[in-house]
Amino acid sequence: MKFARFTYKNEVQYGVVTNDDISLIEGPIYGGWGYTGEVLPLDQVNLLAPVVPEKIIGIGANYVGSKEEKPDQLPEIPVFFFKPASSVVGTEEEIIMPRGIDEVKFESELAVIIGKEAKNIEEDEVLDYIFGYTIGNDVTAPQLFHENGHWTLGKAFDTFTPIGPYIETDLDPSKVSVKADINEVETQNSPTDLMIVSLTYMVSYLSKVMTLKPGDCILTGSPLGAHFIKDQDVVECKIDEIGTLKNRLVKTSVSVES
Amino acid sequence: MKFARFTYKNEVQYGVVTNDDISLIEGPIYGGWGYTGEVLPLDQVNLLAPVVPEKIIGIGANYVGSKEEKPDQLPEIPVFFFKPASSVVGTEEEIIMPRGIDEVKFESELAVIIGKEAKNIEEDEVLDYIFGYTIGNDVTAPQLFHENGHWTLGKAFDTFTPIGPYIETDLDPSKVSVKADINEVETQNSPTDLMIVSLTYMVSYLSKVMTLKPGDCILTGSPLGAHFIKDQDVVECKIDEIGTLKNRLVKTSVSVES
Repeated sequence: MKFARFTYKNEVQYGVVTNDDISLIEGPIYGGWGYTGEVLPLDQVNLLAPVVPEKIIGIGANYVGSKEEKPDQLPEIPVFFFKPASSVVGTEEEIIMPRGIDEVKFESELAVIIGKEAKNIEEDEVLDYIFGYTIGNDVTAPQLFHENGHWTLGKAFDTFTPIGPYIETDLDPSKVSVKADINEVETQNSPTDLMIVSLTYMVSYLSKVMTLKPGDCILTGSPLGAHFIKDQDVVECKIDEIGTLKNRLVKTSVSVES
Repeated sequence: MKFARFTYKNEVQYGVVTNDDISLIEGPIYGGWGYTGEVLPLDQVNLLAPVVPEKIIGIGANYVGSKEEKPDQLPEIPVFFFKPASSVVGTEEEIIMPRGIDEVKFESELAVIIGKEAKNIEEDEVLDYIFGYTIGNDVTAPQLFHENGHWTLGKAFDTFTPIGPYIETDLDPSKVSVKADINEVETQNSPTDLMIVSLTYMVSYLSKVMTLKPGDCILTGSPLGAHFIKDQDVVECKIDEIGTLKNRLVKTSVSVES
């Protein structure tokens, strides 16, 4: 089932997408929702990011090029980072480059959306706590990484976390490929079994550090092939079973210097 | 004016503290609230963290020991980090140590609470966007810092961000001292004019990276004197004009290993 969040007649609504239609729903999408009976053509609504998470957690370099390259041991302390909710935009929204920077990196990723409060869960329980899956683009300005390794600023800008277009609840995350096209040329395409830290290990590990809440979003890392993009480049992050998250990179006149 | 958030008769309420009483209020504290007329004795309510922020942003080592030690130039890229909302607790709540760790660091800090959406604001505008000030304890398990500098995991555990006890709106942040007692022995006591990156520079800088929202919390860094504490140690973070944020450190049986 594909859940969408969108504006229609200036109101934020949720719905279930079937072919070219959206069936409107009411009530919390994580449980207890029902159909309103109203159905709209998909092309008449303005899609938003399907969720505004309390937490967005990403993981550092998490894909290998082939199964043979997988390390024998998982990292003892994986590189996790937070992105702020203020950085979220939906499909077809612009990614805005900070002034003083003329390129940023895109990273297409499978994004997990938590459905139930999760604290100290084991790997074999993880799938019960996942509501569904969407696509995330972990946009990054590594020029603003601190020389001592801190990534916070370089990943925190408004518009730096496109998410969408839908949350797909019927998906086997181990059987999909994460892709990206830049200006219609494919630059990323890897199956998720090339992840180093698996999705279930990641969610279990995180749940032992912090309570995960419904709507929290975990970006599971990007395959090989991410690179810098420039003004007016169009990035399409794709997972066939979910859809296409499409955003154009544009310049802005805003400076980070005071 | 001191704003408190608390439970009374199992409901979360807000109020204004005067001496030993709380006058209950209704409506959003950032604007448009009014007194309900009900007044409670302060000792009959259970104080909560005065705010549950969307974003909690901290800054790395930001105090010098004396004015003479201040660097001539501010860092081009200050070390900022996020802490998750799930890590927030109030005064008198326990800080819970992850299993496998037998000490954590405390850090008493002046915490800024944003009152109005702030995007691209200049230093001389910053005070207009601040709702008030509280005390934060940036609890940290540096054992879980990644060797490449990433601090996220070591600062993200549930209970690792005590905030409180109140939000004081009538405060000159340049005229207060940030203190901490461990088991009733003073270990931190520095005036805020020993900050390296000033509060106004910090908020202006952050607002040029990301939109700050009402309730967002900025931890402005901890003075010299923070150190490791152990099971059953009691940490009291103090700013005289705001109050005392008191928490006991306790062990837990929860592991981060899966």
